[in-house]
Amino acid sequence: MTRSWWGWGADEARLSDAETAALVERVAALLPGQDLTDHAPPDPRALGVPPPRVTPPAALAALCSADVVDRLGHARGKAFRDVVRNLHGDVAHVPDLVVRPRSEQDVVDVLDWCSATATPVIPYGGGSSVVGGVEPRFEGPAVTLDLGLLDRVVEVDPVSRAARIQAGVDGPALEAQLRPHGLTLRHFPQSFEFSTLGGWLATRAGGHFATLATHIDDLTESLRVVSPAGTGESRRLPGSGAGPSPDRMFLGSEGSLGVITEAWMRLQQRPVWQQTVTVDFSSYEAAVAATRAIAQSGLYPSNCRLLDPAEALLNAGATTSGGLLLLAFESADHPVDAWMERAVELARDHGGVVLASRDRPSGAGDAGAPAETADTADASQSWRSAFIRMPYQRDALARRSMVVETFETACTWDAFPTFHAGVVAAAEKAIVDVCGGQGVVTCRFTHVYPDGPAPYYGIYAGGRWGSTLAQWDDIKAAVADAIIARGGTITHHHAVGRDHRPWYDAQRPEPFHLALRAAKAALDPAGVLNPGVIV
Amino acid sequence: MTRSWWGWGADEARLSDAETAALVERVAALLPGQDLTDHAPPDPRALGVPPPRVTPPAALAALCSADVVDRLGHARGKAFRDVVRNLHGDVAHVPDLVVRPRSEQDVVDVLDWCSATATPVIPYGGGSSVVGGVEPRFEGPAVTLDLGLLDRVVEVDPVSRAARIQAGVDGPALEAQLRPHGLTLRHFPQSFEFSTLGGWLATRAGGHFATLATHIDDLTESLRVVSPAGTGESRRLPGSGAGPSPDRMFLGSEGSLGVITEAWMRLQQRPVWQQTVTVDFSSYEAAVAATRAIAQSGLYPSNCRLLDPAEALLNAGATTSGGLLLLAFESADHPVDAWMERAVELARDHGGVVLASRDRPSGAGDAGAPAETADTADASQSWRSAFIRMPYQRDALARRSMVVETFETACTWDAFPTFHAGVVAAAEKAIVDVCGGQGVVTCRFTHVYPDGPAPYYGIYAGGRWGSTLAQWDDIKAAVADAIIARGGTITHHHAVGRDHRPWYDAQRPEPFHLALRAAKAALDPAGVLNPGVIV
Repeated sequence: MTRSWWGWGADEARLSDAETAALVERVAALLPGQDLTDHAPPDPRALGVPPPRVTPPAALAALCSADVVDRLGHARGKAFRDVVRNLHGDVAHVPDLVVRPRSEQDVVDVLDWCSATATPVIPYGGGSSVVGGVEPRFEGPAVTLDLGLLDRVVEVDPVSRAARIQAGVDGPALEAQLRPHGLTLRHFPQSFEFSTLGGWLATRAGGHFATLATHIDDLTESLRVVSPAGTGESRRLPGSGAGPSPDRMFLGSEGSLGVITEAWMRLQQRPVWQQTVTVDFSSYEAAVAATRAIAQSGLYPSNCRLLDPAEALLNAGATTSGGLLLLAFESADHPVDAWMERAVELARDHGGVVLASRDRPSGAGDAGAPAETADTADASQSWRSAFIRMPYQRDALARRSMVVETFETACTWDAFPTFHAGVVAAAEKAIVDVCGGQGVVTCRFTHVYPDGPAPYYGIYAGGRWGSTLAQWDDIKAAVADAIIARGGTITHHHAVGRDHRPWYDAQRPEPFHLALRAAKAALDPAGVLNPGVIV
Repeated sequence: MTRSWWGWGADEARLSDAETAALVERVAALLPGQDLTDHAPPDPRALGVPPPRVTPPAALAALCSADVVDRLGHARGKAFRDVVRNLHGDVAHVPDLVVRPRSEQDVVDVLDWCSATATPVIPYGGGSSVVGGVEPRFEGPAVTLDLGLLDRVVEVDPVSRAARIQAGVDGPALEAQLRPHGLTLRHFPQSFEFSTLGGWLATRAGGHFATLATHIDDLTESLRVVSPAGTGESRRLPGSGAGPSPDRMFLGSEGSLGVITEAWMRLQQRPVWQQTVTVDFSSYEAAVAATRAIAQSGLYPSNCRLLDPAEALLNAGATTSGGLLLLAFESADHPVDAWMERAVELARDHGGVVLASRDRPSGAGDAGAPAETADTADASQSWRSAFIRMPYQRDALARRSMVVETFETACTWDAFPTFHAGVVAAAEKAIVDVCGGQGVVTCRFTHVYPDGPAPYYGIYAGGRWGSTLAQWDDIKAAVADAIIARGGTITHHHAVGRDHRPWYDAQRPEPFHLALRAAKAALDPAGVLNPGVIV
């Protein structure tokens, strides 16, 4: 499998010619007149990437790669703006070295070297950031610390259902090591195949569960962190009230306070009972009201994903006038009939009509996996299949001058109608202003809480080759301004990185900013850890 | 109602003569030979409390009380060691002034004054700390900032089920203001009547729910905090991944980083369906295994309280050879039969026998409230009734030379058998060493998690008048050493305060310590906020 240096995932998994043709045909029908010429990625070795400006100490030399394609592959995350810049051969900031520690001591040694030489160091997991989190977007040299060799499940505690896991393991390798124990982390972000435990922890990634343990935070029992000022490990505790939570300071610190090398994670038994239904609504307001009722019911569905009509059409191939609610319950302990019956009753109370339901045994690592049975009436399965292919489709469209990107947030139920209308209006106005109106805005809820939803928006707009980066940046600024002005969060689970900094700075309470800045100075006195993110 | 300056709660609610006689008779039977002479509290005005050493600025004078009994009432929390010292007339550290702000601006002004004059200031809610959290245990003057006048529910959002609430409101006043909206916080610590929202937040208090939202942290939507370096408010967000959680830095900061003046809290609808069962076990190992199975089942009982035989006997008047599990489910949305049936099935799988069950409509604010129906077979109800009377009984026993106190922790299920044996052995050895073996150790689980329980221990031992403080301190040191040596937390929900500092310092990862110390210096440059706790 060859990891793509310029786009998502593996070269071998790109859209087939037939898939590409079908996609292009569909877009051409939706956006007549749009220029869909394919622009292939440049030869990475012909981009004039300058040689490394730093020389590692001899003891670390064996860990370091100065290969141009390796460095280019680590220069950016996988956001639309990253892919577009790569396609244009714009390689302004490339790390000078990629360093791959084989042990925690190697991590300590790298941080010591970087601190002593004031060389910025960027902790790197799978590189799937969509917020500029791994990009050395500053002048001067930079080292990328790729934790990919620290990829083992070190210890499993089946009684407490927990495991000690190295931070560099990616999703499939993690699940493969847990499977013999009958256990699973069940954390399945869209990036599952190409992201790592350490990356999930450092960015507070959102996962499989639509309710309760929505973020990786909630699955974390303890963390081991290496900072330039020292190494520490929190205790394995199911719960504690001893001072502010130490783990919660490092969860979401995005490599700015230390490098997470290991964690004890809370695991699940593999689900035995699973039920899924798709519910259709004739009005979006009713669909939202039903989703809120379910979110506040105490039933805690594992999936509770409300697709608006545009999202349902584009990504599940389903027609709905108000929305489709993809609802699932799962358990390793008991049948979930009573749970599903009540949830469906709540949906029906708000006018929902059940389109399809499925009662199936659990598959292995099945969150992002394609359906095992094709069922054209089942939007849930279609949507899941599309889900893991979306980034590859995005790449194909980015090559054809389309502006295709997502953004996500969270707000309270009370605020949602006005909030949503304002954000969509801002997006649509920006699409008119910068793309001449050729585009669409979609919305789904990825996670729901008793006090509000986490809406996730998609933008599909026709751009002009050479301008799509600026076009997206204009749209992004408009929607981010709208989110912050209306009380939302600049990110529910995509992290802050460098792309979200202006809005994060506006969102963050000032005393917390002062505290975090001081914490950073104490742990990273040389200021070398991922400069530019968070603080 | 007259708040006791020396002991728990209200003078009017103390044990009646008949209750006291019955209690003393019971203890005398258990500990023959124990001296149970009653030692009444001293006259607080005869204790020689020195006059205030500080003078407030004229603008704040109207907020300040220099009354001796008021100051004595704020000098300590309500731990056994606080009550014993009060009974002995030991008043080493008494705040010079009690200041009662009427507005957030008053809080700002008090912090400004204290920072400018380097006068330590102790944020104070209900004063129910059992860890020395509100005691000016240092040389020099001190001011206690009693937030009791900030006691209003300011705004209710019934759609998102949340309310903006001032920090100084106590439990009953909070629930009374929410009741007309059909909503409740359902946070019922044992101290409910005499503790405040701000105190719960600052100490990460544990509440009503045995699973899921075990700590007040999980019910917190946003916080408003005044620090000497400025005032900030986090956004109302149901979930966020934007950097480390700002709220989680102030939750558990125990007044050392700032004063929480207001919070948006997540509320519940009042439960309509409630089922309770009491399950008897013939072996403690089986009882623990059943409790673990239920904690890992995904059923999420509202109560899952395992009483060991000593706890069952002493506080529920029930005999069991292995343990009693008090199990409850509640819902405002649906009957809970399926939930309870499966939980009982799991208990029976481990040999549990259902003694009593109850299916009742919800009472108002009913967590700590006495049962509306007497049922001698129902240990759950007996235990609940005893629960809120326990601190008054503790006071009566403290007056009679008994050593009566609790400590609590959390650990993983894997570790629990060895952990529990070690902690109990340490406690029993200490009781032998310092109390001649006249005593008993009880244990209950207050909260349970998929990865471990939160055991809560009680000590009842015969002491010697004049020595019970030293006796307790010796026992406490022994059990705290055992907890920390075996990987537990020095507190699951009682906070750190001054009493837990040595063990907290051993527990806390060093990089987090450095970060927190730096954060404190940034927010409180004069170092006046509750010196001695946390950092």
